[in-house]
Amino acid sequence: MPQVSVKNKLVEHAEDVFRRQGFNGASVQDITKAAGVPKGSFYNHFESKQALAAEIVRRYARSTDFSMLREEGPALERLRRHFAAQADRTRGTGVEFGCLLGTFANDSTTAGDQVQEAVRETLDAWTDAVAEIIAEGQESGEITKSRSAKTLATFLIDSFEGATLRAKTVSDQSVVADQLDIAFEALRP
Amino acid sequence: MPQVSVKNKLVEHAEDVFRRQGFNGASVQDITKAAGVPKGSFYNHFESKQALAAEIVRRYARSTDFSMLREEGPALERLRRHFAAQADRTRGTGVEFGCLLGTFANDSTTAGDQVQEAVRETLDAWTDAVAEIIAEGQESGEITKSRSAKTLATFLIDSFEGATLRAKTVSDQSVVADQLDIAFEALRP
Repeated sequence: MPQVSVKNKLVEHAEDVFRRQGFNGASVQDITKAAGVPKGSFYNHFESKQALAAEIVRRYARSTDFSMLREEGPALERLRRHFAAQADRTRGTGVEFGCLLGTFANDSTTAGDQVQEAVRETLDAWTDAVAEIIAEGQESGEITKSRSAKTLATFLIDSFEGATLRAKTVSDQSVVADQLDIAFEALRP
Repeated sequence: MPQVSVKNKLVEHAEDVFRRQGFNGASVQDITKAAGVPKGSFYNHFESKQALAAEIVRRYARSTDFSMLREEGPALERLRRHFAAQADRTRGTGVEFGCLLGTFANDSTTAGDQVQEAVRETLDAWTDAVAEIIAEGQESGEITKSRSAKTLATFLIDSFEGATLRAKTVSDQSVVADQLDIAFEALRP
């Protein structure tokens, strides 16, 4: 089934092209070139660059490692391991290219409804997953109850994304470690 | 001097085009069209889109209101007023378009050396300005000395940028207020 193969190639390579060039900076031709497929084949598989980008956002969300959150042990330790894994993931694909979700969040206003919806869904699902563990930490007395679990989860994620954005400008991830240290201290009762 | 006028028009309109479309998504033609000048006139004034973008970043930096930081009163209050003014500025130009500096930071890897340098300089100068007031707060006992003033300034700014990025995806700035509330609490001794 060569058609499936072409589609898979497009999906496989598009993530890297979007990460490096952003949604606005990546053309369909950039993606077909990276995938090594004819430009004309693109529209047999995706109705638009937007449709592919929305799929890439959801694929990125599906491949996010939430396993640390569900392990045994104190909530704060599980949360720290989860965010450390996110920082590792960003380092693995290049600190200078940042977090793919952050890149799409930045471009979401111009990228159209499909991408914007995928970004919102992904951010919401991530926030809910983190909030669930924060709620457990609030129950066990590890984490302050002064704010809702969701507000604190949003604070952690946005702290991570803000620091990852600065890290991108200097190709140095040390600001992310400092940011997370301070943010986690702020969660104490 | 009609040439000066064309240059001013380009600079005046480019900021809004870059804010809405990002560096990668904004073409020279988008900018000349928004400015109402012939496309061919662009290169009489700027050697490249990059050169104009770097000028726009520096212009945005120069027009940032640091006056609240230098007023009388407790350091924490001055810092809060400063960040509230930054949030107001973003609201004034459209929450859905985010912070212009954040947008350029996101695009800086692909935007070339001139833009990257302007973004780094602007982030560094902002961090230094905030750190100066944090150091005053540390001296007066308002702010924790557990970390350097520069590390805490980076934390505040990156908290703001991360929340402003999320606000962009939902066109709702309330996450920025929550983020700043928690971040400022984290500064207490």
